[in-house]
Amino acid sequence: MSFDHNIVAIATPPGRGAIGIVRISGNNSYLLAERLVGQKEKWRQSDTRSLQLFSVIDADGKPVDDVLMVKFKSPHSFSGEDIVEIHCHGSFYILHKIVDLLLDHGARLAEPGEFTKRAFLNGKIDLVQAESLDDLIASKSQSAAQLSLENLHGHLSEKLLQIRTYLKEQCALLELELDFAEEDVEFVSRNEFIHKTTNILVDIRDLLSSFQMGRILQEGVYAALIGRPNVGKSSLLNCLLKADRAIVAEEPGTTRDTLQEQIDIRGILFNLIDTAGLRPTHSQIEALGISRTQKAIDRSDILIFIFDAHETLQPEDKRLLQESGSWPVPRIFVLNKKDLQQNIESDELKTFSPNAMVSLSAKNGKGIEKLEEILYQLIYQKHSAAGQTFFITRKRHQQELLQAQKELENALASLKQNFSSEFVAADLYRALDHIGSITGHVAREEILNDIFTSFCIGK
Amino acid sequence: MSFDHNIVAIATPPGRGAIGIVRISGNNSYLLAERLVGQKEKWRQSDTRSLQLFSVIDADGKPVDDVLMVKFKSPHSFSGEDIVEIHCHGSFYILHKIVDLLLDHGARLAEPGEFTKRAFLNGKIDLVQAESLDDLIASKSQSAAQLSLENLHGHLSEKLLQIRTYLKEQCALLELELDFAEEDVEFVSRNEFIHKTTNILVDIRDLLSSFQMGRILQEGVYAALIGRPNVGKSSLLNCLLKADRAIVAEEPGTTRDTLQEQIDIRGILFNLIDTAGLRPTHSQIEALGISRTQKAIDRSDILIFIFDAHETLQPEDKRLLQESGSWPVPRIFVLNKKDLQQNIESDELKTFSPNAMVSLSAKNGKGIEKLEEILYQLIYQKHSAAGQTFFITRKRHQQELLQAQKELENALASLKQNFSSEFVAADLYRALDHIGSITGHVAREEILNDIFTSFCIGK
Repeated sequence: MSFDHNIVAIATPPGRGAIGIVRISGNNSYLLAERLVGQKEKWRQSDTRSLQLFSVIDADGKPVDDVLMVKFKSPHSFSGEDIVEIHCHGSFYILHKIVDLLLDHGARLAEPGEFTKRAFLNGKIDLVQAESLDDLIASKSQSAAQLSLENLHGHLSEKLLQIRTYLKEQCALLELELDFAEEDVEFVSRNEFIHKTTNILVDIRDLLSSFQMGRILQEGVYAALIGRPNVGKSSLLNCLLKADRAIVAEEPGTTRDTLQEQIDIRGILFNLIDTAGLRPTHSQIEALGISRTQKAIDRSDILIFIFDAHETLQPEDKRLLQESGSWPVPRIFVLNKKDLQQNIESDELKTFSPNAMVSLSAKNGKGIEKLEEILYQLIYQKHSAAGQTFFITRKRHQQELLQAQKELENALASLKQNFSSEFVAADLYRALDHIGSITGHVAREEILNDIFTSFCIGK
Repeated sequence: MSFDHNIVAIATPPGRGAIGIVRISGNNSYLLAERLVGQKEKWRQSDTRSLQLFSVIDADGKPVDDVLMVKFKSPHSFSGEDIVEIHCHGSFYILHKIVDLLLDHGARLAEPGEFTKRAFLNGKIDLVQAESLDDLIASKSQSAAQLSLENLHGHLSEKLLQIRTYLKEQCALLELELDFAEEDVEFVSRNEFIHKTTNILVDIRDLLSSFQMGRILQEGVYAALIGRPNVGKSSLLNCLLKADRAIVAEEPGTTRDTLQEQIDIRGILFNLIDTAGLRPTHSQIEALGISRTQKAIDRSDILIFIFDAHETLQPEDKRLLQESGSWPVPRIFVLNKKDLQQNIESDELKTFSPNAMVSLSAKNGKGIEKLEEILYQLIYQKHSAAGQTFFITRKRHQQELLQAQKELENALASLKQNFSSEFVAADLYRALDHIGSITGHVAREEILNDIFTSFCIGK
């Protein structure tokens, strides 16, 4: 009996916990798992999906752990193959010991993402769904999780399938024409063709324009906090963090970066970059500091300017406004220290045309909800204005869609210039290829490797 | 419907993984879990121990994740109560979101070890078994895991129960005597009593003497590597590490300590302390360095002296031998650089009476198995000489047993001095109390708290 088709991995995060899971997938998973347990007959008889108690024993018959084990029968399993899960005590030693025993029995250690890759290869999910699984596990906010879940459920895949079906029909008709080329038959009305292809182009452009929001939903909004020293940037950051439910901040393994904090505003993740920390110390050259601030600004989706409303506008305030005024993203002006007497010239500030202005006190928290509301609305309105319902979230999708768009534009141009239909068909086939690459209906080995190696082991 | 009896926790280690588990225990766990799922009827109908697919939804009915859920019916569950496990995608956000939803529905966050504490309070396991569960999860070697598993299976508990039964019988008989005190009846033959109590004392002494080996099996052996500079301490350490299967070294979260390495020799964990790193630099005072070396030696169960066999014995070698010669633990002499010409005076070395001497080359690995064999045998023979089959592993057990031993010795003394049986009974009751404390048959609130707060959350 050979178990080289069977892959094995620890499916739970590394570290110590109450429960750890080792997962096996492959043709002979049940037989492989049988080698591991003392109660072989009980294992053979056990129902699928039913967690039963077993004793895992080593090659000498010595007990390794008491575990719960469960079978998932092909094709009704995650990978589409027979899967066994072994739920042991969450000890690093025991988890690795069980994996070692399985390797000794002939199984192979799974590569990162290999369970999901098999699910893809066995037709359980397409590539977009596979990627959304990875995104789901990485999700840090409600919006990220929900978007991933929608794409996992096939929301985006269906849309892409629709586009492919359209394109395929057109290709088939063009091919027919080519077969009857001698007879000069026109199976596709040129006008109808142009109309349909234009519609598809609109769909593709919608998807392309969803990328920015998709990225924001997944990775979060980048917002730079800009202001001269002592206007209250750190206080504002702390005030926002306190209002936050702090799920994000607690994540283990994330090194707390004093320059960047993550907060969750109504389910959207905001990465707040405190440019104060980017300022040079006295011994450093000013130029260096500015370039680091500039970098923070360059990657931002939104700029938050903070002013000390108790003081009048200072030359430094104006310099900062002018320096970062050219960056084409929404700008919010925060007039801090609302608790003190207000001396700032807000009319003058308005000449710098902010997208919103809010007065608050980072000290006592008054007005902070207003800022959160503005942040949320600015992002939401800006990117949901087109009423997008599908979102692409990966550079890979964007690149393939851009290529498909180019090919379709070529096809339209060829048609309008009355080129032979074989040229048009060639364009369409290439477009079809790019759309198919997104879902994996056209699978290229290097794309598969790229996608799955970014997964965690055991997924 | 109140869910305040229900406790909730994440049962898998923190971090990102393919699978994460949220666990609920309590009277109404099934009903609580029902609030979480879209398919309520399917949940109600689902069999116990059967993993079924559900959609977790938030208060607004929005999907949070696709999960597998399973019921464990009281009393056939870990805690003895109705338990629900929710197997979701191993995203930090999703895991915490599900916990938050359950808290919103009225459940309470579990304290560390609270699931196990409930298992104890519901009579599923005793305290020794509860502790061995904690040890099992913390185990880093085969010997540690196996010992914990044996104690989890009740091996040690049975022995303690035997002792308690004996003591209880004696107490009952002594009480009878007291009831009939007027009539001067002797229900317990004094000789038989002395004989039995002496036997129990032997058992207790055996258990007490198992503590050192029990601790070694659990925590590993501490071995100091001693030798002057350039004799090859680091090479030896690396050579041993290479031969090791390196399970231990890989454990995430453990900061690699250059002064201390952990290796697994035939299932026993060895903590090797390189005293080289403890030497003072030129700018430090010599005294400080010596005291740190001394500390490493003081905590060692074994000393490994390393010599450069290519050279003759140096004054520094002899100084080290003399300085650490008084520590009463086995000493192994390693003659390194076997690959070169041997110039060391091994006869002179023997005058320092090592427990073993081995010639090897840390450079090419020759002779390293011999050293491993010696290390293993030294530890194993020293501590298993008495043929111990039960091991106590916790200071707490040792302390209670020492108290019990004292009380029993008092009882014997009272008997021999023909004291009234009420004095003897009082001694026995106190001994019984101490033995009962170990298994938790006599439960003191502060002991419970001490034990369970050391657990990880979710266990």
